[in-house]
Amino acid sequence: MSTAQENLPQQPAAVLAEISEAIGLQEGAAGVRAVVWAFHQVGAASTREVSRRTGLPVPIAAAIGNELRRRGLLGRERPSRLTEAGTALLGERGAPPKVEVACAACAGTEITIPAKLREAVSRLADIAAEGPGADLALDQSHCTPETKVRRVLALLRAGVLPGNSLLLVGDDDLISLAVGVVGEVLGVRLTERLAVADISPEILEFISERATSLGVPVEVAEHDLREPLPVRLRHSFDAAMTDPPYTAEGAKLFLSRVIEGLRPGPAHNVFLSFGAKAPTEMLDVQRAITDLGLVTHGLIRNFNEYEGSGILGGTGFLQHLLTTDATAPLFFEGYQGPLYTRDKRGRQRQYICVSCEALIPVGAGARWNAVAELQQAGCPNCGKGPFRPGRLVEPAASGSEDAGADRDARQHD
Amino acid sequence: MSTAQENLPQQPAAVLAEISEAIGLQEGAAGVRAVVWAFHQVGAASTREVSRRTGLPVPIAAAIGNELRRRGLLGRERPSRLTEAGTALLGERGAPPKVEVACAACAGTEITIPAKLREAVSRLADIAAEGPGADLALDQSHCTPETKVRRVLALLRAGVLPGNSLLLVGDDDLISLAVGVVGEVLGVRLTERLAVADISPEILEFISERATSLGVPVEVAEHDLREPLPVRLRHSFDAAMTDPPYTAEGAKLFLSRVIEGLRPGPAHNVFLSFGAKAPTEMLDVQRAITDLGLVTHGLIRNFNEYEGSGILGGTGFLQHLLTTDATAPLFFEGYQGPLYTRDKRGRQRQYICVSCEALIPVGAGARWNAVAELQQAGCPNCGKGPFRPGRLVEPAASGSEDAGADRDARQHD
Repeated sequence: MSTAQENLPQQPAAVLAEISEAIGLQEGAAGVRAVVWAFHQVGAASTREVSRRTGLPVPIAAAIGNELRRRGLLGRERPSRLTEAGTALLGERGAPPKVEVACAACAGTEITIPAKLREAVSRLADIAAEGPGADLALDQSHCTPETKVRRVLALLRAGVLPGNSLLLVGDDDLISLAVGVVGEVLGVRLTERLAVADISPEILEFISERATSLGVPVEVAEHDLREPLPVRLRHSFDAAMTDPPYTAEGAKLFLSRVIEGLRPGPAHNVFLSFGAKAPTEMLDVQRAITDLGLVTHGLIRNFNEYEGSGILGGTGFLQHLLTTDATAPLFFEGYQGPLYTRDKRGRQRQYICVSCEALIPVGAGARWNAVAELQQAGCPNCGKGPFRPGRLVEPAASGSEDAGADRDARQHD
Repeated sequence: MSTAQENLPQQPAAVLAEISEAIGLQEGAAGVRAVVWAFHQVGAASTREVSRRTGLPVPIAAAIGNELRRRGLLGRERPSRLTEAGTALLGERGAPPKVEVACAACAGTEITIPAKLREAVSRLADIAAEGPGADLALDQSHCTPETKVRRVLALLRAGVLPGNSLLLVGDDDLISLAVGVVGEVLGVRLTERLAVADISPEILEFISERATSLGVPVEVAEHDLREPLPVRLRHSFDAAMTDPPYTAEGAKLFLSRVIEGLRPGPAHNVFLSFGAKAPTEMLDVQRAITDLGLVTHGLIRNFNEYEGSGILGGTGFLQHLLTTDATAPLFFEGYQGPLYTRDKRGRQRQYICVSCEALIPVGAGARWNAVAELQQAGCPNCGKGPFRPGRLVEPAASGSEDAGADRDARQHD
């Protein structure tokens, strides 16, 4: 059977494992299979949709798509469909059934925006367009106006609003203004006290100005969250919301500041927005959460949608946490360690310009720290783009061992 | 202002705190406020609906309702509405707006049952009616047929099905048969290998019989999960599902067995069903999860609905976990410690018979270990029921310090 067998198709398991190895995927063959399954469910799927469905970051989903295409398992048209050989990866007996199980009404986010709040969405889109841009060096990218409203609705659903006090630890997403706009549209003041601590004077100035014209007082504190909260914000709030840098250190630090701001005691609500990472990296984040004495009360994948198209656009989850009797901050003093993605990035990844096929390194020591910066600048060779992720390049001399740092292309504050 | 003030209504904050203290509520005034908010949102709400919305166990929601009624803040009609004084607890400016934010299509469970699977629900209802009853001593109560189908859909959504191997660690909920029925209705075999480990020969016999008539092979292993898995089930499965006893020890033990059964490596899917507990108790459960090297990929509240009406009926969450590089079981040897709720229960609670007002103690050292048993037996005084939760009684001589054990009235396997 030796020569004849060479012409037979490879076993699905072997193909999936091979692709997983080619891109060093932590999820292994199961992760590749999940991508194939997502393409099968959708029919013709964009990389972004595959990312949503699998929970894999957009650049990883794109890399898997490229490997499938190279092997003739996925079509080259965009959005792409599985070829017959690609569908065969899912089983020997032909295509399995398509069953759309995520709720179509809320896209699996548990929350729908009521008709009377569509106005709030469009007003927040206008406000965001006039506000400060995202600071890539601070891992920022902005969530969509729908996401802003959904976050306010999550606070209403939990009973945090109306009527309680709310602290926003970092607010480049302008959630304070979303609380104001939603309250105005509903005809009720939603918070007893609403405060924002943020490092950026531009963001705080913008929030103060707009909040005043909305008639919703927002207390702003210009503050580097590496330092403990100002005394006037400590031990005072019923609930808090944060969208920290997407590193375990970022989560631990920002949640420590959240806890400093909350009234002592159990059952206070905390909402954490965060981006998908490989399971082993997520373990550090979730250990940080339990180390802080916080418990998970809900976790909604793909709840947060961020601006930007293609590889830059992405989604993140909303984790609903509760304080317990054991809740305490982990950082009391000023924090000096790594915080943003670029502080931790140790490897470069080559990106391929779709227009001219140039290979451009991105990461520590390269001209661009993040693909977002490269996208903004355009290709150094032809001036255009967009860019597809290519191979990982050897660790830089600084030698971080953070194997998953390349997942952080669309990280933000 | 001394005498005049005595006739003024109490401040909302003081009332909420007083009620919280009266029942020793770990959630404090915020928990009571959440119950008031839930009544306000629904209009006329059953205790079960309030439990769903607040995440508080049914007996706790019932106790808070009783305290509100005693103070004239909640009506005595069932289902109950807030009185004017009750509504005033939510703010001084009258009733805040009602905003229905949980998705109406999926009730916030992220998953809807497609029309073509309604048949699977009714077939599973018939199967469950013919199957073994719930064993209260093993903390069992059965999930509804809709929940069985939703659990299979959660496996489909994650891409675990179709095509992979699945291990069920405990299966008194007959999820193995749900996999078979859903597959039959869809016209596809959903699993490559499907196995159940359970302590009950009756359940396994029932599963084997029905699986054979469905044409879906289910491998059954009669096994006490205190002991390591049989060798033939170890390191073999792509995914697993479990609904363990609702104690931190139960979660840790059953998840250890899950991990023994999974193929080594990261990104394997594990689905854990569990019941609401107070935040500080949940911290033990979630620490167990991170200690096992598992990460939370999703957590859907109220996903699981259990059979039984009134105080016995309840809901639980579905937690989607992933393995990581650090995943390892915590128990390798046979486990000898406490496991089921009654092993840990140290206090008794008085239940009040609604028919004859008799006070009946329930808990360790009492005639009934759990209110479910009392409900089955009927009131020892008048033979009827139903029962409302009353006061906690002093710790029994055995002296467990488990302050939240009284929350476990509807625990199950």
